[in-house]
Amino acid sequence: MQELLNEILAEVSPLIGRGKVADYIPALAQVPPAQLGIAVYSNQGELYVAGDGQVPFSIQSISKVFSLVQAIQHSGEAIWERLGQEPSGQPFNSLVQLEFERGMPRNPFINAGALVICDINQSRFAAPAQSMRDFVRRLSGNPLLVSDEMVARSEYQHRSRNAAMAYLMQSFGNFHNDVEAVLRSYFHHCALRMSCADLARAFCFLANRGHCLHSGEQVLTPRQVKQVNALMATSGLYDEAGNFAYRVGLPGKSGVGGGIVAVVPERFTVCVWSPELNAAGNSLAGMAALELLSSRIGWSIF
Amino acid sequence: MQELLNEILAEVSPLIGRGKVADYIPALAQVPPAQLGIAVYSNQGELYVAGDGQVPFSIQSISKVFSLVQAIQHSGEAIWERLGQEPSGQPFNSLVQLEFERGMPRNPFINAGALVICDINQSRFAAPAQSMRDFVRRLSGNPLLVSDEMVARSEYQHRSRNAAMAYLMQSFGNFHNDVEAVLRSYFHHCALRMSCADLARAFCFLANRGHCLHSGEQVLTPRQVKQVNALMATSGLYDEAGNFAYRVGLPGKSGVGGGIVAVVPERFTVCVWSPELNAAGNSLAGMAALELLSSRIGWSIF
Amino acid sequence: MQELLNEILAEVSPLIGRGKVADYIPALAQVPPAQLGIAVYSNQGELYVAGDGQVPFSIQSISKVFSLVQAIQHSGEAIWERLGQEPSGQPFNSLVQLEFERGMPRNPFINAGALVICDINQSRFAAPAQSMRDFVRRLSGNPLLVSDEMVARSEYQHRSRNAAMAYLMQSFGNFHNDVEAVLRSYFHHCALRMSCADLARAFCFLANRGHCLHSGEQVLTPRQVKQVNALMATSGLYDEAGNFAYRVGLPGKSGVGGGIVAVVPERFTVCVWSPELNAAGNSLAGMAALELLSSRIGWSIF
Amino acid sequence: MQELLNEILAEVSPLIGRGKVADYIPALAQVPPAQLGIAVYSNQGELYVAGDGQVPFSIQSISKVFSLVQAIQHSGEAIWERLGQEPSGQPFNSLVQLEFERGMPRNPFINAGALVICDINQSRFAAPAQSMRDFVRRLSGNPLLVSDEMVARSEYQHRSRNAAMAYLMQSFGNFHNDVEAVLRSYFHHCALRMSCADLARAFCFLANRGHCLHSGEQVLTPRQVKQVNALMATSGLYDEAGNFAYRVGLPGKSGVGGGIVAVVPERFTVCVWSPELNAAGNSLAGMAALELLSSRIGWSIF
Repeated sequence: MQELLNEILAEVSPLIGRGKVADYIPALAQVPPAQLGIAVYSNQGELYVAGDGQVPFSIQSISKVFSLVQAIQHSGEAIWERLGQEPSGQPFNSLVQLEFERGMPRNPFINAGALVICDINQSRFAAPAQSMRDFVRRLSGNPLLVSDEMVARSEYQHRSRNAAMAYLMQSFGNFHNDVEAVLRSYFHHCALRMSCADLARAFCFLANRGHCLHSGEQVLTPRQVKQVNALMATSGLYDEAGNFAYRVGLPGKSGVGGGIVAVVPERFTVCVWSPELNAAGNSLAGMAALELLSSRIGWSIF
Repeated sequence: MQELLNEILAEVSPLIGRGKVADYIPALAQVPPAQLGIAVYSNQGELYVAGDGQVPFSIQSISKVFSLVQAIQHSGEAIWERLGQEPSGQPFNSLVQLEFERGMPRNPFINAGALVICDINQSRFAAPAQSMRDFVRRLSGNPLLVSDEMVARSEYQHRSRNAAMAYLMQSFGNFHNDVEAVLRSYFHHCALRMSCADLARAFCFLANRGHCLHSGEQVLTPRQVKQVNALMATSGLYDEAGNFAYRVGLPGKSGVGGGIVAVVPERFTVCVWSPELNAAGNSLAGMAALELLSSRIGWSIF
Repeated sequence: MQELLNEILAEVSPLIGRGKVADYIPALAQVPPAQLGIAVYSNQGELYVAGDGQVPFSIQSISKVFSLVQAIQHSGEAIWERLGQEPSGQPFNSLVQLEFERGMPRNPFINAGALVICDINQSRFAAPAQSMRDFVRRLSGNPLLVSDEMVARSEYQHRSRNAAMAYLMQSFGNFHNDVEAVLRSYFHHCALRMSCADLARAFCFLANRGHCLHSGEQVLTPRQVKQVNALMATSGLYDEAGNFAYRVGLPGKSGVGGGIVAVVPERFTVCVWSPELNAAGNSLAGMAALELLSSRIGWSIF
Repeated sequence: MQELLNEILAEVSPLIGRGKVADYIPALAQVPPAQLGIAVYSNQGELYVAGDGQVPFSIQSISKVFSLVQAIQHSGEAIWERLGQEPSGQPFNSLVQLEFERGMPRNPFINAGALVICDINQSRFAAPAQSMRDFVRRLSGNPLLVSDEMVARSEYQHRSRNAAMAYLMQSFGNFHNDVEAVLRSYFHHCALRMSCADLARAFCFLANRGHCLHSGEQVLTPRQVKQVNALMATSGLYDEAGNFAYRVGLPGKSGVGGGIVAVVPERFTVCVWSPELNAAGNSLAGMAALELLSSRIGWSIF
């Protein structure tokens, strides 16, 4: 496996230089582009890391999975009264659909849906940002994980589009807490810094019927795990979920920091990272690496 | 298995009377609603049938899978220059997205995408309706399969919405043949009459790496099979694909005739049928039956 | 007045070469671009013509006014059960609005609305194209007016977008006649060839409380005239109606042939023509000429 | 004239009880519905008042005209770099168009456009709410005019939809000041309390080539006046501008407080008020009164 990961990184490394690092906030734009890492974690607890797989990066939208899992833990099926389960068919930050569908976001992985999930969590936790950080520390087994304050602040300063969505949902009665407070929590979650190794370990419960190998925690029920994986499979990669299923064939979640996590149910989790993005906002080299990995080992769920 | 199928039908039968038979054309509206059937076909060639699983019905949009497979057979990856692979996030017959995306349909399972696939096939086959019928006869092993001429004619008379889509795509240069001729082929495919048993057998190559058990034909390559299954998983159930993944967890394709086919990769195909539909246009009892079946046997791919 | 018209043409002639002749059908694309004409017709029957004001051109969407007037003549207020009176806020050929508003076009001057009006007229006249031609001959006092068969045929061959709209309206029950037959009538109206002088004379009833000076006909009631002028003022120039009101301040109607007719209620009609269009599909030099004319003589209704 | 106004109020008073008082904020919902007033002000300085024409009410969106005039005064044509002049074709508070047109509102009379105008004014005035109040006091000749603080505060508390629009425009770079501060100014303008008599007097410069009769101020140039009137004619009545032109034939501006002001260029201003609204958000009895008035005196500009 270690050899295979090295090979795959070598094969996709020529893609570096062909994508574009996220530049909507200055703090992200400064990330050196020529980085590429991967980590695979097996249900037997073996960890394989290659390239820059131990370098922490901004997990951004990958945090939406953690938020969803927290919400499922304390609210269960009730969350679906406030958002849907369907792919959006729109770029990840579109307000059009949100208006036509009267403030009900399509799914928990578009920004509007993640904001509703954060609003749900905000009603439950006294200190949502800290609760999330502690939760992810346990899941990853890395007690030193932190959120990058500078990134969180910078995202807050550029919050206008997310603020527009939250206020729009509020106008439809689908947002219960103070918009500014929820946005602060949301950006703290996005600004968590984790490595591929951290993320592969933190997602292992989704490959393992809800059981977290290292913490021993039963994070979700087996049934809930299947549901989260299903949601990632249909909506996890912004406006490229269909193409990801077609090419890679695994449930996954990406972030504009350049990370992509994928789950091989009952067997493995894998995380790739390279900061340069394609036009759809997903890691260019990361997509290619996962496609190779999936086809070489025959990991597709299809 | 046989016993399980009987049980499941018994459990979901109270749903009969709670849905609504498709009534956009008179010929479909006349179908007696209180029918319910199921068939499972294993990769070992075992067929299990329960309820009305041998009664032929109008396959409607399930035919979109056969059309796509034909197009992949003769044109391969080239078809993706003319349509996308992403879920639509819109009801299955919306023109809005088609206009914004300049005549390029989102995927092969919404009507617009299926019309483009039929247009591609129309350029290749001298007699597209007959080629399709013969293809499906071979796949199902049922040499008596026919298309219901009355249904096909009735759909053609009510073609206005599909005609609008085809002309809109033509206005963007994404439709090459005569609109009326393609519509006639399209409605002939939709009007094919097949039973659950026919469909379970006809789809078996998608559970079996492209190999059709009874005809011996290698219909698609293993890689192409994974791709078709991925497309069904993300876009196969109209505006309910996400919910189907969440509840059932299998690649599937539905039709407004009340049929739903699902694939358990490497193991089984299953087809359920009940004419009454839910608000999203999918068989109400069929969805419930597949959800039970999936959870009882643990068939989810997630 | 004659002198003023000559002056204005001289002032706007430098704009020639800066626009773009309509090229969506070959027959229109071949029109020599360097043409510029104007005609003013007073309620006293005085006609002033300058430049190419006697050269016939394809009136295109200006015909939508004649169609509307015919429909009002025989059906009166009943037509408003089938279309609206509001500006569209969309490019003239968008299907989006038509779908959201369930097949009810916004107004009679967007293509969809004009098609509904033609459908209404088709139900009334045995030979709609001939009825229209005869009507316009009487209004203009030019018994030799004809429709350009080559243009009409070419538009029919490129009918896909208009066909999409008509079929979409049919799918909502708002189209009663055979789509192809109505499209043929519609394109015959668009292909009428008239000069600025013809059009200024033909529109004079709209400046004259419904009375056509030369034919003596009472075409509409004074109240209906105000209504038609109001509709032209709010929706007559595609997606530039607001800008036309802002710059020119008169009810008007334009066509992609490069003609624009405007009405000075109780006083004059004016028609300008120059084939090159701006980005909104209106005559570039024509807009400028009308703006100058309106500000020089103080003709704005505001 | 006085007699005519009395007659018209008597004729339309049966409509009271058939509309619905605006209820999106509690302060407005409490207005007693059975009120009806009218005022006409001539360019000779004669004021005619009938019914409740001296009762002050919340002018709401009528304030958008005052904001626009202020912006034209200090910034002239430059404002059109930040918003358009076209009718919107959408309900007055839609975000869809705003997103598709990348944060550029269609015109100054939809909420998004008025917010941009307030943002422009916010950059210019140290105390925008006070500047506006003083401006309107001068225009109306009523030194006691005030803004209703309770209404302004209540609107601010229900600001979510307007906040969503402002943040969306900020995300496109088309909003320069603090969103919350601009919203506070905006709601203060909306909450101004004026009677029909106040408004008829305050609008007189738009009927009088920019000259305010009682203050002696030249508010705008004659050319600017025509432009403002043109904008009101095409966009002044939300999604009913076309119908208002068709029925009334005058430039006008309405508010959800139930007021409608209309301008008879070179002759009169008129203001009607009745709190109950029709489905489009315009005063039900007010529309009817203006239609009668326009047709009785032949005031249409068409």
